[in-house]
Amino acid sequence: MSCNWGTELWDQFDNLEKHTSWGIDFLEKYTKFVKERADIELSYAKQIRSLSKKYHPKRSREDESRYTWCLAFASTLRQLNEVAFQREELAENLNTQIVCELTRYTQELKTERKTHFQDGRRAQQHIESSWKQLESSKRRFERDCKEAERAQHISDRIDLDKTDGEKARQTAQQKQQAAEESRKDYVTILNQFNQDQHQHYHTLVPAIYQRIQDMEERRIERIGEAMRLSAEAERKVLPVVKRSLDAMMDAAESIQPRMVSLLLAESWSLVICTREFI
Amino acid sequence: MSCNWGTELWDQFDNLEKHTSWGIDFLEKYTKFVKERADIELSYAKQIRSLSKKYHPKRSREDESRYTWCLAFASTLRQLNEVAFQREELAENLNTQIVCELTRYTQELKTERKTHFQDGRRAQQHIESSWKQLESSKRRFERDCKEAERAQHISDRIDLDKTDGEKARQTAQQKQQAAEESRKDYVTILNQFNQDQHQHYHTLVPAIYQRIQDMEERRIERIGEAMRLSAEAERKVLPVVKRSLDAMMDAAESIQPRMVSLLLAESWSLVICTREFI
Repeated sequence: MSCNWGTELWDQFDNLEKHTSWGIDFLEKYTKFVKERADIELSYAKQIRSLSKKYHPKRSREDESRYTWCLAFASTLRQLNEVAFQREELAENLNTQIVCELTRYTQELKTERKTHFQDGRRAQQHIESSWKQLESSKRRFERDCKEAERAQHISDRIDLDKTDGEKARQTAQQKQQAAEESRKDYVTILNQFNQDQHQHYHTLVPAIYQRIQDMEERRIERIGEAMRLSAEAERKVLPVVKRSLDAMMDAAESIQPRMVSLLLAESWSLVICTREFI
Repeated sequence: MSCNWGTELWDQFDNLEKHTSWGIDFLEKYTKFVKERADIELSYAKQIRSLSKKYHPKRSREDESRYTWCLAFASTLRQLNEVAFQREELAENLNTQIVCELTRYTQELKTERKTHFQDGRRAQQHIESSWKQLESSKRRFERDCKEAERAQHISDRIDLDKTDGEKARQTAQQKQQAAEESRKDYVTILNQFNQDQHQHYHTLVPAIYQRIQDMEERRIERIGEAMRLSAEAERKVLPVVKRSLDAMMDAAESIQPRMVSLLLAESWSLVICTREFI
């Protein structure tokens, strides 16, 4: 009669612990990744915004508002500012929708995971102590059987001597009774153990495994959701950036060199007057 | 007889010099702006690329290739690398198509501008020296007229004294002749000046102005072209980035929590075997 269920179960729990811990590590790694991604977006937005600010005329020269190329550049700078704003919003969305949510969720998950493994360990300890009790009861029963057998053997051999015979018979009978008690105890404990074992394997452990599996499925669901949200947040930026670039293109196309030089000629009032002398 | 055309023309040239110099400053400012824009893109691309590299598993764990969420993350990282590549290409395009071209063009423009203003100065100096010659010839003629008049006056007054009278008459006649010479000179020089002036105002200066105006129009055309190229270079990135984001979304949507836990159950072979004792 050998049983390695304990080891097997511990192995399973160890694997599950390793796997779910790896899952949480991944979740934390992914959160950190999104955080760093948001930081990059923020630093990019900051650079774009300060570039736009740097080149934006402090105080517009009177002429500047008259030339289409100055207006086009001012429009480019405004659109760039809009792009920076979009990138900042993306960073903000990544931080609030993903980083904050996943950080909170990871804490919940750690707590939940701890509970499941505590339940597992408790069930494990219970079945182990039940098994130890069974083992010790079995050893007592075997020892009592052997002693009863030996007492019977002695009693059978010294039947001739009456006084000793009577004593040996009594001892044999007592030992027989003790062995019978041990057998009864053992049967009770064995039944209890079989019942515990059945409950352990068919109710407790499957329930814990199921909860761990549900937890794992939810974790993966959340990762998928976070990845979708991340791609979606970034996708939402594109049409706005496209509109900004279209506006930059329109501004560039509105530059009219001919009109500019007419304006120039007008502002300088290049009226040529020659004077004839005498 | 007063003439401030010299000052007027100098003012016009000064204005033109200031305006075209401002135009070149703008061109250099815009080139610097695009250069800084490209640098920002390059630094953004670098950060995105190193983020992708940092989170890409060094050596893929055997399990990782089996889980859809690990595959989805790996795909996200690959797509991010593609985004970095697009941004690098944008920076490269901004640098080659705009920064290099405009830098080269600005040098050409500076040389061309210098030539036009040298021509202008030369024409200016020529008409000025012609004007000075006219002025001095006019002064000489006026002086000679006055002298002839005075000599005539003296000659008229001392008519009684014969010897002196003859001398005075001769002097008056000589002065009259000198005045007549000066008048002829003055007329010749004046005609020459009027001719020069006509050519200056109707041919030389308009031609120089036209060349400066053409130059200015080309400059503005180039700025417009650079702005269009810049917006276009950036617009070209969008569909590629969109494809990358779509691929990230597809990867996120391919995550299957249910399949993951089936894989888990299979790999742990959670076969529960209870053993009945006795």
